[in-house]
Amino acid sequence: MDALLEAAGKPVSGDLYLEVQQFYAWQMRLLDDGLTAQWAETFTVDGVFDANGHPHPVQGRDKIAAGALAARKALDEADIRHRHWLGMVTVIEQDNGDVLARSYATVVEIPHGGKAALKFHTVCEDLLVRVDGVLKIKDRQVIRDDLR
Amino acid sequence: MDALLEAAGKPVSGDLYLEVQQFYAWQMRLLDDGLTAQWAETFTVDGVFDANGHPHPVQGRDKIAAGALAARKALDEADIRHRHWLGMVTVIEQDNGDVLARSYATVVEIPHGGKAALKFHTVCEDLLVRVDGVLKIKDRQVIRDDLR
Amino acid sequence: MDALLEAAGKPVSGDLYLEVQQFYAWQMRLLDDGLTAQWAETFTVDGVFDANGHPHPVQGRDKIAAGALAARKALDEADIRHRHWLGMVTVIEQDNGDVLARSYATVVEIPHGGKAALKFHTVCEDLLVRVDGVLKIKDRQVIRDDLR
Repeated sequence: MDALLEAAGKPVSGDLYLEVQQFYAWQMRLLDDGLTAQWAETFTVDGVFDANGHPHPVQGRDKIAAGALAARKALDEADIRHRHWLGMVTVIEQDNGDVLARSYATVVEIPHGGKAALKFHTVCEDLLVRVDGVLKIKDRQVIRDDLR
Repeated sequence: MDALLEAAGKPVSGDLYLEVQQFYAWQMRLLDDGLTAQWAETFTVDGVFDANGHPHPVQGRDKIAAGALAARKALDEADIRHRHWLGMVTVIEQDNGDVLARSYATVVEIPHGGKAALKFHTVCEDLLVRVDGVLKIKDRQVIRDDLR
Repeated sequence: MDALLEAAGKPVSGDLYLEVQQFYAWQMRLLDDGLTAQWAETFTVDGVFDANGHPHPVQGRDKIAAGALAARKALDEADIRHRHWLGMVTVIEQDNGDVLARSYATVVEIPHGGKAALKFHTVCEDLLVRVDGVLKIKDRQVIRDDLR
């Protein structure tokens, strides 16, 4: 087992673990409620969003916001809601205070008048850093489990 | 962003956040295991349960209990189990000690001998108050995501 | 309501509750990432794994590891990924320090190139004990909700 994986097996402080949980609940609420600009504020200005389901990484809060807004408009036009659940979080605190968080993330898709169903299941790996004391995402990697 | 939404972005104390989590785990266990009277005890005597999937709000613990029991009997007759997951909880503590909790809630439906599937996806908004120190639901709003 | 159920309604310390949450996140990561030997290390040497979906209980870490490895190989051959979510956890700490944890557990199945879907929904009841201070599973009962 490599050192990083081993570190993920050691519980972190309750304060940090709950801060991460609350960060995710809040972050996903913003995205799912269509507050895409506020959602993008949870990334650092130079933040990176990468996903194996996307053609290339997106760097910079402005571009991340633009991508989220475009995705939102497409959902609104299709009259579909997405709800993101993150869970099963493991957290590693690094010596410099940066935080590695790995979670499962699944998207529930709910068409207007239709049936809720899982859209994707992914593993989400975040590098979280503190900006003025508040956690922000500096790097997010989203790995869809249906793609190899 | 309005003041309430902004407040939801600030982490509350770990003690309160975990009390809310444990409250929900316990509350849903009671409902899903068919202990509908005990489940209703998690509401205040004058508690309200409202849902956009229901014809009208239900007020009063007795009526809430009666509604849950009727729903339970229907499930038992159909030989179907429901399991409620609440997650992605944001919590706001108000100056008077009342607690606003907003979560995603999804119902997994499992027919006897059949396949588990999501039944509904909802947003659940609770006003929690303390009665003899214990959290109780004074007002619950359940908003199904498939209904507009 | 019996005494055990009543005890499950009383919040435990935040430290313990979070230790259990982090234990599960870590444990499931090991299993789902195919680290079956390390996963089996989260059981005591004489640990028991029982499930109403299995023909008989499995006792002993070595046998638990062998079962997990066989299951993993079958998944790999079918090119299917499983992701385990545990949630809605209630925890009881016993006088001797042992921990009873009951949770919902669901398996998300993701075929390569296919759609994620729930495979099973279960209730998971664990007896956790401390070995050199670290939580280990001494007894796990997994009850599938589709079987009666």
